[in-house]
Amino acid sequence: MNTKPGARPRPSVNGLAGALVDRLVADAAALRLAVTADAGSPRLIDAGVGVPGSIEAGRRVAEICLGGLGQVRIASTGPIPAWPFSVEVHASDPVLACLGSQYAGWSLKDGEGYFALGSGPGRAAASGEEIFEEIDYRDKAGRIVLVLEGDGPPPPSVVADIAKDAALPPESLTFIYAPTQSLVGGTQVVARVLEVALHKAHAIGFPLKDIVDGLGVAPLAPPAPDAMTAMGRTNDAIIYGGRVQLFVSASDGEARELARALPSTTSRDHGAPFAQVFARANGDFYAIDPHLFSPAEVIVTSLATGRSHRGGRLAPDLVDASFA
Amino acid sequence: MNTKPGARPRPSVNGLAGALVDRLVADAAALRLAVTADAGSPRLIDAGVGVPGSIEAGRRVAEICLGGLGQVRIASTGPIPAWPFSVEVHASDPVLACLGSQYAGWSLKDGEGYFALGSGPGRAAASGEEIFEEIDYRDKAGRIVLVLEGDGPPPPSVVADIAKDAALPPESLTFIYAPTQSLVGGTQVVARVLEVALHKAHAIGFPLKDIVDGLGVAPLAPPAPDAMTAMGRTNDAIIYGGRVQLFVSASDGEARELARALPSTTSRDHGAPFAQVFARANGDFYAIDPHLFSPAEVIVTSLATGRSHRGGRLAPDLVDASFA
Amino acid sequence: MNTKPGARPRPSVNGLAGALVDRLVADAAALRLAVTADAGSPRLIDAGVGVPGSIEAGRRVAEICLGGLGQVRIASTGPIPAWPFSVEVHASDPVLACLGSQYAGWSLKDGEGYFALGSGPGRAAASGEEIFEEIDYRDKAGRIVLVLEGDGPPPPSVVADIAKDAALPPESLTFIYAPTQSLVGGTQVVARVLEVALHKAHAIGFPLKDIVDGLGVAPLAPPAPDAMTAMGRTNDAIIYGGRVQLFVSASDGEARELARALPSTTSRDHGAPFAQVFARANGDFYAIDPHLFSPAEVIVTSLATGRSHRGGRLAPDLVDASFA
Repeated sequence: MNTKPGARPRPSVNGLAGALVDRLVADAAALRLAVTADAGSPRLIDAGVGVPGSIEAGRRVAEICLGGLGQVRIASTGPIPAWPFSVEVHASDPVLACLGSQYAGWSLKDGEGYFALGSGPGRAAASGEEIFEEIDYRDKAGRIVLVLEGDGPPPPSVVADIAKDAALPPESLTFIYAPTQSLVGGTQVVARVLEVALHKAHAIGFPLKDIVDGLGVAPLAPPAPDAMTAMGRTNDAIIYGGRVQLFVSASDGEARELARALPSTTSRDHGAPFAQVFARANGDFYAIDPHLFSPAEVIVTSLATGRSHRGGRLAPDLVDASFA
Repeated sequence: MNTKPGARPRPSVNGLAGALVDRLVADAAALRLAVTADAGSPRLIDAGVGVPGSIEAGRRVAEICLGGLGQVRIASTGPIPAWPFSVEVHASDPVLACLGSQYAGWSLKDGEGYFALGSGPGRAAASGEEIFEEIDYRDKAGRIVLVLEGDGPPPPSVVADIAKDAALPPESLTFIYAPTQSLVGGTQVVARVLEVALHKAHAIGFPLKDIVDGLGVAPLAPPAPDAMTAMGRTNDAIIYGGRVQLFVSASDGEARELARALPSTTSRDHGAPFAQVFARANGDFYAIDPHLFSPAEVIVTSLATGRSHRGGRLAPDLVDASFA
Repeated sequence: MNTKPGARPRPSVNGLAGALVDRLVADAAALRLAVTADAGSPRLIDAGVGVPGSIEAGRRVAEICLGGLGQVRIASTGPIPAWPFSVEVHASDPVLACLGSQYAGWSLKDGEGYFALGSGPGRAAASGEEIFEEIDYRDKAGRIVLVLEGDGPPPPSVVADIAKDAALPPESLTFIYAPTQSLVGGTQVVARVLEVALHKAHAIGFPLKDIVDGLGVAPLAPPAPDAMTAMGRTNDAIIYGGRVQLFVSASDGEARELARALPSTTSRDHGAPFAQVFARANGDFYAIDPHLFSPAEVIVTSLATGRSHRGGRLAPDLVDASFA
């Protein structure tokens, strides 16, 4: 619980996620994960490097990323009929769950070339990202968990920095890591379909405090052995196959404008599988139109008027071009 | 457990729901609910008046309404393609879950104009409704929970009456309240899609003891700020977008007749959004054809013959006219 | 946990399922099951003979069959629009869950004509089936559970044999039984849609060690009072309405060939409801082409190349001919 005098109490994303991590560890053999916990060191959960992992483990890692505030499910139908198995995401307090926890927004690096993006509730305890000022949330917790989309844990110097920032001993840290190419990596990244919508809403200036609830779904991207293809597919699942409904405290004009501007269809880079867009940008992520990173189709419901506004459209052919 | 000599043991709906209420309270911050528990007073859970609540909280309140006997889920596909996010309901012992617990059948009133309909397992402990004779069920429990579709808890005199009827001290009572306009209210009311089918089956004379199992789904109605529109939408979700499958111990003739008579299409008031029907009836609820309150489409499977019978049809245009 | 030196630890299917059985027993009244536990005798759970059971109980029995490694859900949409309520299956470690536990592969018989097929995690503790050599798995557990598709528990002599094979006292055994005609029987058999795919993959020579993950769905078959019709429908749900996606460590050529050979469409007996095929074979199960026992439609994703291959097709008309 994280309270201020007079303020609504907020949940502890690390506290809620910690209980889910305990169950993940208890079920590690069934989920085909490997857990290492050495005295004085962080607990490391390999979810797709030396072990196969599983889609179910990815589903659970996604719920950990959401700080225990989200429900992630594998459904057998979804927006893209040819790729029916889908990832459904539903979060209470979606801004906290998605942007305060799930968003892969923490650049972890050392002086020797190590670089990874940290996702998950540990961000709210230790990262200095600006978003936490904006959403006015910090999480003091006795132990924290971070999820890395990559092929190993961070080096000792980075671990030490995080431990220091969180004011915790290293053994109170848990790192879960899985590359995008893995079953876990692919599943947990597609589960960002709702987060991506909130992130773009924020980027185009929609007030986060006015986003009250949200639901999302995207087709499960088939893993690819090549990191670039795998990244392309998880992006395409969302950009061309993702659907989101947001419930906002806003006027019809604001909700209509959000529905118009939010979907990926508004991007000048819309129209080709992400791996092609990336190649065209000569592999420079920052040369890609950031407006592309958004679900294909959105429904924005104004809680002020009760009216729903729509934008975007699914692109099944592009999902197919990417996944096949 | 509620047993009679020689009878099949029956579950305690308040006992099962009590465990779910405990978890709701533990997760109140995450679900954005406010809980008050003063000595000598009932526990009050505000699920949508001074707090935003959430769709997930509504899903859980619906499972509490079902006396812990039902599973409610938010799915990303459903009967109405344009409103894909849907509420799925599935109950073991559906007659007990839906009519013995979930049905909003208890008129709570005092001498000073207070009026509310009580839903949930507390009815089986304290209400004098006739249905409990018919289903031969009463629930003695150490604590009870009631759900109110409204903007506040009942006044002290009504609380005292309920406590007396339940033979419990007031602090053993929990009230959860949320208006139809709220995220929780809208979600939990749409989750009545199966209950509405059982209620109409009962009203048209089908023996409740012959309803063995049931499944239902309806589109999640977008909340509306106006109580009338909100009520209209939750009704339309079921009447024009709801689908139910019942499994009955009955002959083909009886099952076929149930499938024919059960859906909302048999009503003379079918064909306009509920808010219009209500206006046409000059706001007199009892002037509306009760046959309207039923899912749009039903499948009735006879367990005696194994044959399935169908009735009704979805009306996506009317859902759209109501929700948009 | 079942480990060998140097090997990946494997979960205990009886250990995981045991926790689910405890919850099934605790919820027996709600699920409408009858539990008998006499000193010195196995625990017997009647799930559809003298009690009605429920679809929810069937869902849970299916998860027990999967050794606690699978997730089974009742969805309101699925591959066959006219029969929308469906059974979704998803298993981490699907080969262990489905073939090492769920597969109804253990012939239980005595010298006096008793015959039943045993399913569930108890097989891995006590059965001498060859499959356990192939998947290199045995489960030593303090108690075991077996599920029987039939109308009673096994006779004392068979119980004694199983207890001896498992090196456990009879009271450490649990038997759950339900005929195919019951709500539980029908639900748990349709939940074999993924298992059936793995079994056929194995039969046509695809290496089990290369099957890494899997997802499946099939329409919920309406129960039929006649055993033959009921068996026909559960088979047809899978053969004509089932869809599976497998994730395999294999080349494109191998994955393509698996996708081609796996679906039921490759069988010479494809094209008529199963009850008719069975009658045509004069009731001789072994005269039916074993290639028929497979999902209608498959997607096989090669984890080596990332490419997905497709085979088969749904046959909604045949599902209809069988279910109606």
